[in-house]
Amino acid sequence: MIEIVEVGPRDGLQNEKRTLTPEQRFEFIKHLSASGLKRIEVGAFVSPKWVPQMEGSLQLVTEIYRRRDEFAKTVQFSALVPNVKGMLDALTTPLKEVAIFGACTESFSKKNINCTIAESFERFEQVIAMARKHKRKVRAYLSVAFGCPYEGAVPEKRVIDLILKLAKLGVHEISIGDTIGVATPKQVRSLLKKLKSRLPLTKVAMHFHDTRGTALANVLASLEAGVEVFDSSFGGLGGCPYAKGASGNLATDDLVYMLEGMGLKTGVDLNKLLSYSARMQEEIGHKLPSRTAEAGVPRLVT
Amino acid sequence: MIEIVEVGPRDGLQNEKRTLTPEQRFEFIKHLSASGLKRIEVGAFVSPKWVPQMEGSLQLVTEIYRRRDEFAKTVQFSALVPNVKGMLDALTTPLKEVAIFGACTESFSKKNINCTIAESFERFEQVIAMARKHKRKVRAYLSVAFGCPYEGAVPEKRVIDLILKLAKLGVHEISIGDTIGVATPKQVRSLLKKLKSRLPLTKVAMHFHDTRGTALANVLASLEAGVEVFDSSFGGLGGCPYAKGASGNLATDDLVYMLEGMGLKTGVDLNKLLSYSARMQEEIGHKLPSRTAEAGVPRLVT
Repeated sequence: MIEIVEVGPRDGLQNEKRTLTPEQRFEFIKHLSASGLKRIEVGAFVSPKWVPQMEGSLQLVTEIYRRRDEFAKTVQFSALVPNVKGMLDALTTPLKEVAIFGACTESFSKKNINCTIAESFERFEQVIAMARKHKRKVRAYLSVAFGCPYEGAVPEKRVIDLILKLAKLGVHEISIGDTIGVATPKQVRSLLKKLKSRLPLTKVAMHFHDTRGTALANVLASLEAGVEVFDSSFGGLGGCPYAKGASGNLATDDLVYMLEGMGLKTGVDLNKLLSYSARMQEEIGHKLPSRTAEAGVPRLVT
Repeated sequence: MIEIVEVGPRDGLQNEKRTLTPEQRFEFIKHLSASGLKRIEVGAFVSPKWVPQMEGSLQLVTEIYRRRDEFAKTVQFSALVPNVKGMLDALTTPLKEVAIFGACTESFSKKNINCTIAESFERFEQVIAMARKHKRKVRAYLSVAFGCPYEGAVPEKRVIDLILKLAKLGVHEISIGDTIGVATPKQVRSLLKKLKSRLPLTKVAMHFHDTRGTALANVLASLEAGVEVFDSSFGGLGGCPYAKGASGNLATDDLVYMLEGMGLKTGVDLNKLLSYSARMQEEIGHKLPSRTAEAGVPRLVT
């Protein structure tokens, strides 16, 4: 069984131009749950001044738990918390998992979360201490692990050090992100091979972008290395903020197509999942970049 | 060194709605050659009644050899010949390689080349005999090897038998096609593993479509099995005739991006290659499906 962490409602939607209402997002998440996705990141406790697309995340999460019986019993929700203030919001909800977000380069950290890497780790410690006290799990995103839009190539050693540092802080999972979609399988293999001797890969999720078509090849390289958790976004929602018109997040549809085609169970009903594509395209106002959403599921795959 | 067989001017353009003039195709092929592509399929000797997009292929090939010094010395051209009539045309040119086209299912064979598989092999024998007499190499395409739009799943044993039968006829290379873009790496690995003990994989090229985003993952699986020749189409030209709006041929741009990023030399200058994307989009009248054409080459890849 491969775990898919569906990041469309958060990472996907927060990079879309059009803002969906909390009601629209609620319906979307309900559909994702009904399609068999087991882990869904539903929102971010951030200021709507910074990320208007995530406005009403607290209201949304509260509503999800108020109507919890409308979702699959087995589905788990999480939300992004950038700081103590966000964590305080999260603690007013029954959310069992929160996520923190860091970067592998100073430039990306400053531009994206407005602090140095060292400062971000101070925030992480505070958030993790609060989470531990209240028995919430913490997932960590480590972005630009394979390349940075500002600094270019990123030293592998630094990436490994940051992963190990995050693991030491006590997060249950580190999602290693190819934020600008530049990774190739060689890089992925090399990183995971070196990491493997220092950290059990059960602690690792891979977060690929399909900006240059390599996402599923990188998934394959990761599977071969032993990774069993992958992030993806419904329909490839989100695009790439660093290349206008380009694809961003790996589409959940494409990921499920490949995994199921390889006999790896995801629990996702692909036809059911795709039945929401037309509605989402209308809501966000453009075609989704997913390949499978366009082509459909062939009859031969069961 | 990995060999790329550029099929954009033939397989790509013949599946585009808009027909390019032989002059436009000449300029396109010149650009492909200048970008470092070493093997280019430039046209098809078929009736323009059946494939209007390939009209003027004889004129085009003749012009290419008349102005041979405008192309890289090392580039090799080929053209599709469906039958004896096409082969007679090819023999009026200095083309050193021709290609024949067969299928793994009776339905696809009948709908695509208007004969049974057995009849297609009779044609192949005639064409190959003529080619041998005139010292031309023959490449064979074997389509719908991983799934058929009419018959669904295709038995692996039949695919292997057809490959071996083609090899026995004396073709120098068999291009195994995932014509509708349904293959996953598991299928690819399984086929190549079984094939390997019967035929040197130097005789094999893989021809993937990116209809469900799996093309580069399938390339990776093929590389791991030992394949060193891949077909692709500039910008992903061609689309998928079996799913409206969906992607077809793997884009050469994406293939080169991944291979070069893995340290595998292709001889192709990716920035140079992409410099023609805007012009091609104008000529064919729509956006190219290539991911890399949209996102561009990041600075970190050298």
